[in-house]
Amino acid sequence: MTQKQFDVLTIGNAIVDVIAMVDDSFVSHENLVKGSMNLIDEARAEQLYSVMGPANETSGGSAGNTAAGIASFGGTAAYFGKVKNDKLGTIFRNDMKTQSVHFNTEAANDGPATARSFILVTPDAERTMNTYLGACVNLTKADVDEKIVKASAVTYMEGYLWDKPEAQEAFRLAAQIARASGNLTSITLSDSFCVERHRDSFLDLIRSSIDVVFANESEIKSLYKTQNFDGAVSAMRKDCPLAAITRSEKGSLIVRGDETVSVKALPVSHVVDVTGAGDLYAAGFLYGHTKHMPLQRCAELASLAAAEIISHTGARPLVNLKHHAKNAKLI
Amino acid sequence: MTQKQFDVLTIGNAIVDVIAMVDDSFVSHENLVKGSMNLIDEARAEQLYSVMGPANETSGGSAGNTAAGIASFGGTAAYFGKVKNDKLGTIFRNDMKTQSVHFNTEAANDGPATARSFILVTPDAERTMNTYLGACVNLTKADVDEKIVKASAVTYMEGYLWDKPEAQEAFRLAAQIARASGNLTSITLSDSFCVERHRDSFLDLIRSSIDVVFANESEIKSLYKTQNFDGAVSAMRKDCPLAAITRSEKGSLIVRGDETVSVKALPVSHVVDVTGAGDLYAAGFLYGHTKHMPLQRCAELASLAAAEIISHTGARPLVNLKHHAKNAKLI
Repeated sequence: MTQKQFDVLTIGNAIVDVIAMVDDSFVSHENLVKGSMNLIDEARAEQLYSVMGPANETSGGSAGNTAAGIASFGGTAAYFGKVKNDKLGTIFRNDMKTQSVHFNTEAANDGPATARSFILVTPDAERTMNTYLGACVNLTKADVDEKIVKASAVTYMEGYLWDKPEAQEAFRLAAQIARASGNLTSITLSDSFCVERHRDSFLDLIRSSIDVVFANESEIKSLYKTQNFDGAVSAMRKDCPLAAITRSEKGSLIVRGDETVSVKALPVSHVVDVTGAGDLYAAGFLYGHTKHMPLQRCAELASLAAAEIISHTGARPLVNLKHHAKNAKLI
Repeated sequence: MTQKQFDVLTIGNAIVDVIAMVDDSFVSHENLVKGSMNLIDEARAEQLYSVMGPANETSGGSAGNTAAGIASFGGTAAYFGKVKNDKLGTIFRNDMKTQSVHFNTEAANDGPATARSFILVTPDAERTMNTYLGACVNLTKADVDEKIVKASAVTYMEGYLWDKPEAQEAFRLAAQIARASGNLTSITLSDSFCVERHRDSFLDLIRSSIDVVFANESEIKSLYKTQNFDGAVSAMRKDCPLAAITRSEKGSLIVRGDETVSVKALPVSHVVDVTGAGDLYAAGFLYGHTKHMPLQRCAELASLAAAEIISHTGARPLVNLKHHAKNAKLI
């Protein structure tokens, strides 16, 4: 594999996170279930914003966070995602630029506003997400820049993208271009309820077109409709060349054919906000993988990045992950 | 509450379990995912039976197991469920009689055969179920014997029943009769994938018509679409007067309004087959509850019954649970 211009291209819903620390009673009073991901309309978005108290606005979106993580490790990252030409869209684009992610998808000039997710973080570090998807779901095949796909060693997609048929087409096209260019394809399953919505379609996609799958324990169980983790892992071994399966504080498991690598989670003295843990795990893993590191090391970089992100609010790294990994003697 | 003729009436799919001990490789070779519940047709049932090796036939069905458990504690139990007039149907009826469960639902004279579940138990005690539903799904309102519902302190249903609209109607009718007679209603959510199929309908049912909910951790998370256990429990507190939530080896949690009772799982030296653990938990709990015992004691009886059932193959108790509970000084 010759050196590509980009290590990883990620494709996903371009969302600005609006993060507030709240008490459990606030979540309950708003009739929300802690830990859930709710889709909301513009009216509810305005209402929530008016009552949620002081909040931080920071660019997010699962695949966007992963791209920022790759770049923070010193890798080269590109991103496809749809914002509108509005204030939040400008914030999102500027953050990507500051974080050294190549982001050139054309912004929408009309239609719904840039997507935002109101993330309520409770004292136990759990997040309850309320997402207004707005402009981000209007990503189509026309937004797939063939040159960038060809120039990326890995093309990675978040499962949330699968909720819109046009975005599915966009990813299928990108995956086809990637494979035809000898590049790798990758997907994160995103959320067990996203898997529930797209179970058969995800299985077809994985079996036909994916090289590296990222999933957590509940997502892989949902995919294979089992309560048994070992059973789900065995099934995944058959369906995909390489899979990284995260288990929160129990660490993660990498499976490649008959090979299994098990890595512990890094201890975090004070978990503040679990948002982005999976996204940054994928960033660390893919950074290592594109640098041809052994699986064990890829998973260690992944754990390092996940541990960093849950130690503060927001889903983009606050430290330079390259320096952080050097200090930990991982690179 | 005056003494009723029956402590608990249970309603569910009447199924004969065909249990075989197999290796993981058998499960994998049959393209099954360990820990899954698969619905199969008659042809697949015959094929599986021909290759699965020596098997035990024993009456099962989630609600049937619960009724047998209640009776084994010395409680009075009745059962509604549909078998056919065939060999397995006769076995099912005889087992119910032997286990002192009142079972009078008329058998079908034509149509599909009595339901059976081929349960493959692997060395790790996990079960992979392959169920041919046959006659059991033909339970209708006509099978609801009003006298028995009125005469039962609790009317309990398994969630699996919800897969057929006619069976839903049957349970709704029974629940209506029960409530009008001042009796309690109860439901087990059965399986997180069953919850996935009926989420909104289950929530409506629970909010409008249920007094006692049984669920395990993955079921309650699925019900409220959250990965956060605490969040799901908080939501359940609002939706139902009393809920018993099981967490496998982590024990169980009983919630009633603001009250919380936490009970450890009983240690089991050798777990052989986890089939029926939830069913017998419900049996122990409801036995205690109908005898007006405190919640803590109800949950201890529940744990005792669950521990007994997982120490051997099959989902009906092998010991007299009343004696067993006396030996443990719980009654």
